[in-house]
Amino acid sequence: MALTARAFGAQEVWVSTKDVPLEKTVESIVTRFGGDFSIKTGVKWREAIRSWKGKVVHLTMYGERLDDALPSIQGQDLLVVVGAEKVPREVYELADMNVSVGNQPHSEIAALAVLMHRLTDDDTLYRDLDGRLTVLPNPRGKTVVDNAKEKQNART
Amino acid sequence: MALTARAFGAQEVWVSTKDVPLEKTVESIVTRFGGDFSIKTGVKWREAIRSWKGKVVHLTMYGERLDDALPSIQGQDLLVVVGAEKVPREVYELADMNVSVGNQPHSEIAALAVLMHRLTDDDTLYRDLDGRLTVLPNPRGKTVVDNAKEKQNART
Repeated sequence: MALTARAFGAQEVWVSTKDVPLEKTVESIVTRFGGDFSIKTGVKWREAIRSWKGKVVHLTMYGERLDDALPSIQGQDLLVVVGAEKVPREVYELADMNVSVGNQPHSEIAALAVLMHRLTDDDTLYRDLDGRLTVLPNPRGKTVVDNAKEKQNART
Repeated sequence: MALTARAFGAQEVWVSTKDVPLEKTVESIVTRFGGDFSIKTGVKWREAIRSWKGKVVHLTMYGERLDDALPSIQGQDLLVVVGAEKVPREVYELADMNVSVGNQPHSEIAALAVLMHRLTDDDTLYRDLDGRLTVLPNPRGKTVVDNAKEKQNART
């Protein structure tokens, strides 16, 4: 979920459960692949939602249609709330909007990805994050540029 | 992954590892929420890819850009291959195309959802699957119609 948020253009991910190994995993990806994405865990969700200055969108299979909701979401400073398993009723009320990506049971990660993809363009997915490692699109194999080595080579 | 494939319009999901509990979970969702989606587990991936009559698209963070690949994928009979962890080199070669949804590490489920969403329209996500349970879009709460009860009520 955290890496999907990062890949699709989020600035931060907040997780309600304290989880230091998760923080380390995400920070290690950021260190290697770049960008200024950050993760906080052990965040109090009620306070986070209440104090958000922009718009709060709760993703749920019960929510209104994505295509109906999009015009009100575009261009906003968004906090997207995604729950694992049973989400407290309070979240439905605290959120500005409850939005579905299909009214079928599936994955919160898929819902987040599609929402974010609809709010951005293809270039967001391929933006240069200026990391140590850069993966270049390759139809047949793997092209990974190690920029640290490139710089070293350029220097010598 | 299986439920995401179903929600976004796939007809079947095949899993290489035999997994009867997974089959039961997915079949239970189909029974309740409708549609004719099916799951097979314990499928030999090499044979499945080789014998596919349509196009085989392998989703990988190393692949060519999604927007570059889409024109060749649209309207095809698709087998989408998604690997957990390390994917054998052979898959890259057997696939007709290796396609990325961003060249950053994230989730295979997110990649599948976005690919399928780009190949379909919003109505696919909200198509009537004629199940026992139908969830109706609701901006503030949960609306679940139990069609079995509705029919029973209509009968009495």
